[in-house]
Amino acid sequence: MMRQNGLPEPFDTRLDRLLGERYTTSLPLREHHGRDESIFAAALPDAVAFARDTAEVVEIVKLCSQFGVPLIPYGAGSSLEGHTLAVHGGLTLNLMQMDGILALNADDQTATVQPGVTREALNAMLRDTGLFFPVDPGADASIGGMCSTRASGTNAVRYGTMRENVVNLTVVTANGEIIKTGRRARKSAAGYDLTRLFVGAEGTLGVIVEATVRLHPLPESTMAAVCAFPDIAAAVRAVVQVIQLGVPVARCEFVDPVAIKALNLYSKTGLPEQPHLFFEFHGSASGLEEQIALTQDIAGEFGAAGFVWSASPEERNRLWAARHNVYFAALQLRPGARSIVTDVCVPISRLADCVDETIADLRQSAMLAPVVGHVGDGNFHVQMLVDEHSHEEVQRAEALNARLVARALAMDGTCTGEHGIGLHKQNFLIDELGAASVSVMRQLKQALDPRNILNPGKIFTL
Amino acid sequence: MMRQNGLPEPFDTRLDRLLGERYTTSLPLREHHGRDESIFAAALPDAVAFARDTAEVVEIVKLCSQFGVPLIPYGAGSSLEGHTLAVHGGLTLNLMQMDGILALNADDQTATVQPGVTREALNAMLRDTGLFFPVDPGADASIGGMCSTRASGTNAVRYGTMRENVVNLTVVTANGEIIKTGRRARKSAAGYDLTRLFVGAEGTLGVIVEATVRLHPLPESTMAAVCAFPDIAAAVRAVVQVIQLGVPVARCEFVDPVAIKALNLYSKTGLPEQPHLFFEFHGSASGLEEQIALTQDIAGEFGAAGFVWSASPEERNRLWAARHNVYFAALQLRPGARSIVTDVCVPISRLADCVDETIADLRQSAMLAPVVGHVGDGNFHVQMLVDEHSHEEVQRAEALNARLVARALAMDGTCTGEHGIGLHKQNFLIDELGAASVSVMRQLKQALDPRNILNPGKIFTL
Repeated sequence: MMRQNGLPEPFDTRLDRLLGERYTTSLPLREHHGRDESIFAAALPDAVAFARDTAEVVEIVKLCSQFGVPLIPYGAGSSLEGHTLAVHGGLTLNLMQMDGILALNADDQTATVQPGVTREALNAMLRDTGLFFPVDPGADASIGGMCSTRASGTNAVRYGTMRENVVNLTVVTANGEIIKTGRRARKSAAGYDLTRLFVGAEGTLGVIVEATVRLHPLPESTMAAVCAFPDIAAAVRAVVQVIQLGVPVARCEFVDPVAIKALNLYSKTGLPEQPHLFFEFHGSASGLEEQIALTQDIAGEFGAAGFVWSASPEERNRLWAARHNVYFAALQLRPGARSIVTDVCVPISRLADCVDETIADLRQSAMLAPVVGHVGDGNFHVQMLVDEHSHEEVQRAEALNARLVARALAMDGTCTGEHGIGLHKQNFLIDELGAASVSVMRQLKQALDPRNILNPGKIFTL
Repeated sequence: MMRQNGLPEPFDTRLDRLLGERYTTSLPLREHHGRDESIFAAALPDAVAFARDTAEVVEIVKLCSQFGVPLIPYGAGSSLEGHTLAVHGGLTLNLMQMDGILALNADDQTATVQPGVTREALNAMLRDTGLFFPVDPGADASIGGMCSTRASGTNAVRYGTMRENVVNLTVVTANGEIIKTGRRARKSAAGYDLTRLFVGAEGTLGVIVEATVRLHPLPESTMAAVCAFPDIAAAVRAVVQVIQLGVPVARCEFVDPVAIKALNLYSKTGLPEQPHLFFEFHGSASGLEEQIALTQDIAGEFGAAGFVWSASPEERNRLWAARHNVYFAALQLRPGARSIVTDVCVPISRLADCVDETIADLRQSAMLAPVVGHVGDGNFHVQMLVDEHSHEEVQRAEALNARLVARALAMDGTCTGEHGIGLHKQNFLIDELGAASVSVMRQLKQALDPRNILNPGKIFTL
């Protein structure tokens, strides 16, 4: 028997009894959880639950499984590929109240946290420990969500992505069992790498209820720098050379003239409207000098000018806040527009070609689209600003993205460096890895979630 | 209908037709492939096949699948946990003739190789490129085998294990399909991490036929050092402090007095019979100075003496050759003995306790057993020298290992840092991760290899 909210009545009753006010079918909350930053149409869940502990998650998963109700794990809601849209209805499970830091092992450089802890909250807690958690996707995402999308961001060139920075997970599987994917040792050869299986699974294989992550020592010295290049190709080629020479840059971000214009308007950065690189260097005082000297030499060879160095934390924070604001700054370039953001990543040797050809394609398509990128990893984003009500514009943007993905794949790259597959890139995933590989993924999904309860419709369709 | 060799006749005939002399039932070859360095009884395959290309692997896998014949992928045969023993008979597939280097992308620091390329062959090919492949488990293992056991070794503290150094794999699945697990970009968020699923799967999920691995720039400068400590606890505590202070040591190996004695006899190293640390540092000239000064300070605080520095490649090679020879050197301490090697890895904060308690246990058990370890990772090995024909000795060694594993697990460590589960540690795996986690592994296995053809009986029983 169905209630008005589309959920079976006994399910509804039992969740209500389990969670009280933390179980809701209120429209505003369903709407909040059924929309995201992407251009996809809203897809509302039938209800929203807020869990406070693992025992509740187990009960909720068991009920969803018993009644065949789709379950969408939900963190900060900052994903960009429609991961949290309830495309088959069901229950969205908000995990942000599970925000406890369960253990800090400073000597081992690990922290164990609940999934609702955000990366900024974790770093705030780490203040005064001499350690930090480096993975930084821009948004103040939750650790659970960052695990699920295999997030990375500006620091990944030096410190790796979530793939390298998750030590182990505790996961509630589709049948409501709690499993631990590993211990706290730095390495292990004990059986299948379940940790890496759940990292990047986009909530389709289990609900992450605890994560142990790697911390890193705060660098002895830090220096940030900004410099302008005569053209885009020069900026990208400079990065490629810095990476190939093995300079251990901590951050290395490309910002194109359109994005600079947006930043100048939004953050009053006052930078020349030219292609820029934003750098950050971590190390000992003398190590920093070496890195900086080498980088400055290389950048100079490619015509860089106007090097601005920032050693003070305040200046650096302003710089990186500006970089992280590009997304919202860009939206202001065209008020009312929505973003379609691309996310290819290519081998570094092909990066300059890939960016060149993409910028030419954008120009030819007359698309307003800032380009920024974690270019040290070969990853860059085109943020296409479109009128979501214009079918023609959306189609034009999608066609641009399809050409960009095809270009990246032809260069042995990936359709997504860090945003994930979600709803948007399911065909690209097949183009990238082939139908046989995606079929293996489907087999894994069917083995661990035979009723297709967990975030159904994401990564692939069954 | 079965032939004398235990294999169905049509299977036998078809393999014979496919491979000619590269398919054999000769006893010496079956014996060669049915024994290993471990103390397990030999378990011979019914036949051995030598594949030369992926197409042959596909045919062989399909035939095994069709006729229900177990298939054991085989590389250099250097694994220590019985991985390659044909405990259910069947066909051992030797992949060492697939030893081509398919691509070197120096600008991207990747190489794509066939599974039979050994790590030394790869590094020999890289000579003059300024790059090297760091993962170094001691033995000249094959890249395919190193992927399958998630190998690591002396360099892992700085460069990571196979988990971090495999970019993508090409795998033949149990149904004979060829899948690619990823592209060549440095990072990707495209679907489940199939690469990490096959790394460490011990040949139970597919046959690896190509691997793209990460290369690293040869360091500008390299320095090795050896120093002696007054006691074991001091040596281990010095390492823990070096790691916690973030010194980026490239290698950091503990060698106990028993192992030193073995080395002195075997390699004429002439070192005092005290606990030693062997270090290697990689970096720029000035970076090296900083690392060395800090390490020497710390070691000095723990009473280290007799620092011997080696800057020349010849001296360094002699040092690391000696370190890699510990295994064979130790066997000479008791001619005719076999080794039972342990492999726990614990969080670095617990390493000193774990080593202390283990050495006390060894003394109490009167077991001749050198202790060496990749202590920068928290990983160490006890090489128990036993008379394999003495049930009592083997039992005593197994009991010591069981106590060691229990101790490591109580410290949130793992039963295997790098050797894998194989035959020996299946119960420890359950102790470590719980029955529910191992049940998830079984579900994955059953999904991808429903007939249980691929290296059956390893990691877990079905």
